[in-house]
Parts: sequence; structure tokens; C-alpha cells
Amino acid sequence: MIPDIEQKRTRLSPQARAEQILEQAADLIQREGLAAVTMERLARDSGISKGLVYNYFPSRDALLTALLQREQDQLRDRGMAEALKAQTLEALVEGTTRIYLEQTHARGAVILPLLEDPSVARLMEHSRREERDQTIRYFVRAVRREYGLDLVTAITAVDTLMNLTGAMGRQVAAGTVTVEDGTAMCVQLITGGLEKLSGKRPA
Amino acid sequence: MIPDIEQKRTRLSPQARAEQILEQAADLIQREGLAAVTMERLARDSGISKGLVYNYFPSRDALLTALLQREQDQLRDRGMAEALKAQTLEALVEGTTRIYLEQTHARGAVILPLLEDPSVARLMEHSRREERDQTIRYFVRAVRREYGLDLVTAITAVDTLMNLTGAMGRQVAAGTVTVEDGTAMCVQLITGGLEKLSGKRPA
Repeated sequence: MIPDIEQKRTRLSPQARAEQILEQAADLIQREGLAAVTMERLARDSGISKGLVYNYFPSRDALLTALLQREQDQLRDRGMAEALKAQTLEALVEGTTRIYLEQTHARGAVILPLLEDPSVARLMEHSRREERDQTIRYFVRAVRREYGLDLVTAITAVDTLMNLTGAMGRQVAAGTVTVEDGTAMCVQLITGGLEKLSGKRPA
Repeated sequence: MIPDIEQKRTRLSPQARAEQILEQAADLIQREGLAAVTMERLARDSGISKGLVYNYFPSRDALLTALLQREQDQLRDRGMAEALKAQTLEALVEGTTRIYLEQTHARGAVILPLLEDPSVARLMEHSRREERDQTIRYFVRAVRREYGLDLVTAITAVDTLMNLTGAMGRQVAAGTVTVEDGTAMCVQLITGGLEKLSGKRPA
């Protein structure tokens, strides 16, 4: 059997191998916490040499950053797919909030420890700010279209309301609220707040 | 002149001396950043011996924690005074948000670096959580009274909405929004959100 496994192992493309190592790291964080993740342990759990792990990721920080980036990319891709489907601001808020809370619920045990790690946070700072700025710009356009707010008010409102969704994500991750209830509450708090701020009901 | 200054110095009560050292530390953080604060530097700037500084604060962390605690106590005392004056939920949100944003505007350069310091944050964790829980309980009662929300919904709503105010505080500290505009926006976003969530206008 050993030659057979060996053969399968060498058949993995570099992309699939990197993916396998990241998934192993995600599992390990979920089961035993971030401190359990070492290059040695990942090599052992993946049944490959430590040298091969270093071949894909030059350091533990590089590996953890790649993992967080992958989670962030998945969230952005799913969020964009939802955004393109939405016909109204309410549908846009509903779809993107649901995606965010689902991801936080399913992957919070992987993502939150990575976000709290000072080295990973520092390495990801630029990329996360870019991502956040893009999201803000998208929502600012949608909010202005629907509620006619001036640019500065719209930017300030979207920026603060994004933190509301982030706080709901922490409650979903802690298990104090379901994805379903959290999504419904965010939609009502956000659209209700924007309606009152603009002094008008949505079109 | 030296004996005279010496005499004045020894006349300070222990309370006033501790206060003077904390104020010196706050000034230093605002002018030169948190890293500039050392026990040596504080002794020099206050014109007292390093031993006397250690007499009041056993370590730099203890001193910084006392400083953050003092800021937090001032905010709570001013917030409670506002809360007692408020006759409606809107007035309660308006008064407490204004106090919070004013403090963040005036003292953000002192408070935010302290909150970001890992040792200070760890030492203050318990006290800040207690403070936060008390604030949440107070607002939950007020929100339920005005909007008739069930307990779980009210707790979740207040918890997430507090993060909205926190986010506005960061914008005020960054100078992108004034205390006046930030207060008005928070009041409209929060009360508008709660009105829609409860399905009714306030009493």
C-alpha cells in the first residue's frame, strides 16, 4: 500500500498541495487552537516532509497569512455574487450580511484567532484595508442611489454600519444568535437607520 | 528657591501626587506616544525621584492601567449624569453618545493607544467587560420600555448598536467627522434601526 499512497501524493499539483496544507492548518486551528500550528506538525499531519511544507510557505506567518487571505477571498467572491443578484438596497444588505454571518458561523473558529494574531494582522493590514475600502465604496454608491445621502454622510454611515455587522458576526460566532436571526436584525437595524437618517422611505 | 519648591512638593497629598503623575503620563502619550512613557521619564518630568513614582505605581503597566481606569471612570460618571437627565430613549442615546464622542475627541490620543497596548488591555479586560455589561443592561431596560422588544432581541440589538457608536468614536478621533455630526448620525441610525426592528414608532 505504501507505494500506492506515495504515488497519489506525488500526483498532487502544487496548487492542490498548497490547498491541502492550508486545509490541514485550518482543521488544526479549529480543533486545537492557533498555538498548535507549527510547520513540523503540519508536515506530520499531511504525511509530507517539513522541507516540502517550507517549499510552499517560507514561514509559519506566510502560511497563516495565506490561510486568512483565502478565507477573505472566499467571502468576497460569495459576497460579490450576492451583490450582483440584489435588486434593492434591502436585498443587497440581506444577501451580503447572510454570507458574512454564515462564513463567520462556519469558519469563525479559524478566522477570529488569525485576526487576533499580531503578526498575521500586521501582514494582512494593507490587504484588509483595501478590501474594506472597496466594500465601503460599493455600499456608498448603493446607499446614495437609494436614499440620496450626500457623499460624506453616506461614507460615515456605511463605515459605522459595517461595524454593526461585524459585531453581529461576533455574536453569531459566540453562539448567542443564529445566522437567520442575526441577518434579519442587521437588515432592519441598517435599513431602519438609513431611512431615518435620510428622512425618507426607500423607493 | 529650591527649598521653596521642595516644600511645595512635599505638601501635595498622596491623592494629588498620584493624579499629577497620571496627568503627566497622559500629556506624554498625547505629545510623544505611548513608547515615550517610562518611569524614569515621568519622574524627570514631574520633578520627583523615580523611587517616589514607584511608591505610587508598582510598575509601568500598573500606572497605565490606572490612567485608563481613570478615563473610563470619568466617562461613566458623565454618562450616568446624562442618563439621569434623559426623559426619552432618544434623549438617552443623544446625551450618552455626545459624552462618548466628546471624550473620544478630547482624549482619544490618550485612550486609544492604551486600549491597543496588549498588557494594559489584558489587565483591564475584566473591568471593561463589567462596565460594558452594566451599560448594556441599562440600555436594554430603556429599549424594552420604549419599544417593547423581547429580552434576547433587545440584548443583541444593544450589543451590536454599541459597536456602531464605538466606530463613530474612531471616526471622530481620526477627525473625519465632528462630535456634533457624529452624535446626530448615531441618534438617527440607532433610533431608526430600533423603530424598524420593533415595527413601531417611539411612544
